[in-house]
Amino acid sequence: MPIQVLGYAAQTSSSPLAPYTFERRDPREDDVVIDIEYCGVCHSDLHQARNDWGFSTFPIVPGHEIVGRVTQVGAKATKFKVGDLVGIGCMVDSCRTCSSCDAGLEQYCEEGNTGTYASVDRHDGRTTYGGYSKTIVCSEAFVLKVPENLDTKAVPPLLCAGITTWSPLRHWNIGSGSKVAVVGLGGLGHMAIKLAHALGAEVTLFTRSTDKEKDAKILGAHHVVLSTDKNQMKAVRNQFDLIIDTVPYNHDLKPYIPTLSLNGTIVLVGYLGEISTNTVPLIMGRKSVAGSLIGGIAETQELLDFCGKHNIVSDIEMIDMHSINDAYERMLKSDVKYRFVIDVKNFQA
Amino acid sequence: MPIQVLGYAAQTSSSPLAPYTFERRDPREDDVVIDIEYCGVCHSDLHQARNDWGFSTFPIVPGHEIVGRVTQVGAKATKFKVGDLVGIGCMVDSCRTCSSCDAGLEQYCEEGNTGTYASVDRHDGRTTYGGYSKTIVCSEAFVLKVPENLDTKAVPPLLCAGITTWSPLRHWNIGSGSKVAVVGLGGLGHMAIKLAHALGAEVTLFTRSTDKEKDAKILGAHHVVLSTDKNQMKAVRNQFDLIIDTVPYNHDLKPYIPTLSLNGTIVLVGYLGEISTNTVPLIMGRKSVAGSLIGGIAETQELLDFCGKHNIVSDIEMIDMHSINDAYERMLKSDVKYRFVIDVKNFQA
Repeated sequence: MPIQVLGYAAQTSSSPLAPYTFERRDPREDDVVIDIEYCGVCHSDLHQARNDWGFSTFPIVPGHEIVGRVTQVGAKATKFKVGDLVGIGCMVDSCRTCSSCDAGLEQYCEEGNTGTYASVDRHDGRTTYGGYSKTIVCSEAFVLKVPENLDTKAVPPLLCAGITTWSPLRHWNIGSGSKVAVVGLGGLGHMAIKLAHALGAEVTLFTRSTDKEKDAKILGAHHVVLSTDKNQMKAVRNQFDLIIDTVPYNHDLKPYIPTLSLNGTIVLVGYLGEISTNTVPLIMGRKSVAGSLIGGIAETQELLDFCGKHNIVSDIEMIDMHSINDAYERMLKSDVKYRFVIDVKNFQA
Repeated sequence: MPIQVLGYAAQTSSSPLAPYTFERRDPREDDVVIDIEYCGVCHSDLHQARNDWGFSTFPIVPGHEIVGRVTQVGAKATKFKVGDLVGIGCMVDSCRTCSSCDAGLEQYCEEGNTGTYASVDRHDGRTTYGGYSKTIVCSEAFVLKVPENLDTKAVPPLLCAGITTWSPLRHWNIGSGSKVAVVGLGGLGHMAIKLAHALGAEVTLFTRSTDKEKDAKILGAHHVVLSTDKNQMKAVRNQFDLIIDTVPYNHDLKPYIPTLSLNGTIVLVGYLGEISTNTVPLIMGRKSVAGSLIGGIAETQELLDFCGKHNIVSDIEMIDMHSINDAYERMLKSDVKYRFVIDVKNFQA
């Protein structure tokens, strides 16, 4: 029987989020049902709720940084049992047969992955609804085990902000001896610093304001470079194997390229849109400008296990569901260190 | 004793090239002296002779695709003997101690390599002069062995056009099973097709004019795609592991990015200047935009050996030295298949 679920939704691109009751599917054989305890608030939730990218569908229940406990297990689901602490990130399904899916890179599914919200379920054609809600139903293949030793309420951002920075760190083989720089100190940037540090890299934060230095160093940055200071930028020329650029709006890449080492890569993970650069520094050091999208399911599990082992979580500010519209306004002013997490456990209508 | 050499030089950025007699250094212990037989004409010769990039020095003797025979060997030079068929490409020296040089990547020398012409010798401070001349003196470390079985007059372009496309093919591990596309069918593009084909890749030429199809297939392209035809471009979406973009002027990269496979790279080797693109297709397939500069000395020798084994040379049109100014005008109209080579052997004042 379909499940009635209380959540929070935007009914149009211009309306604030408000309580909304909707139906989840009758669980399939491979599904698990999860009581959501916490849900992180990602910048893209806001973009999608306001249809900034032009492809949102309404009503929309955002939320793709979901942590909760299994309450029900489908007949053929074997990965989890009732009571397990689990997570769901940005995807709830994919074609599972293309070469990307075969390679564990479901985020790059050739047919397109199924997003956790505002997407269309590939089996029943119904709209998917996210984690700003009490309960979710999901194929176990897209559900992650969450280590019990971590501070549960600070885990959700690992499932988007965390994996989005972890995947490039792993793809570009960052480890001991690597030099990594991070552009932007928000939800993604602060996770990039923590994870690169834990992988053994020497970590630098590029920032435009000196007041970020203390925080960055507490998070694990070894160095902070003021990107508006030409001398400081000159001093780090040809240094970085990887720059993770988390800035979510249009910005000038040109100052960063010369700071890449030979064969270095600047990977954009936060900004959708036009960029420009100059080929000369790319050619003169076989440097690359790349993009990267979240991470695969196996890689996300690897991240959670790594975080469990190294006791890494996000720095968060807990809010109740009814404060979500205020939280969006604060996010627009970057007034959060570094991720809002909704206390779904205590959410009532 | 310094050597008097007859060559061809531009005295200013606006004067045509004309006969010019100049001095080569007294050979050092590690030098070899080479009687030049053939010299290829690269697009950058023209750019530098006309100071298009703003850093030329005059008088300038262009030419960095040099093939000739050793006539003299320094006391401590051991690699070559008199009579050996040898080549010199774009570099005649580097610092030889930085990490790039240590890795055999002299083209990316941290102190800057010494260019074959219009550069400053790092030992005596004198200007370097290129291959539009009868004789050259060069440290044996930057001299390549040329296979005797090849058509010698068609070898010079391997030393710039060849290595510039060979290096990315090797760096991005192209071989059997790879799919490679080439943008632009000129000196570099035609070598890219030949080399990618010989490495076992499936090769596609992107072109804007249908009349290139026959030639491209003779050179070894398996497919030709009209880049202005949206349906043809759509049919090759997510196909190419590597696109070698040889176009030497500003052009739109956006149509090409979606044709890259997951983890694919478009590498620019011919254009110095601004580019713009959109991050969405980069992010959605972990794709990269990169640059690459010629190749290292060991890699250039590897290329020459490979070409010897596979009997690969450039398609050339031979000219005499006195026709060089006309050749430049024809190059500007892309009126050459695919490289001019100067018959230096028969050049007289």
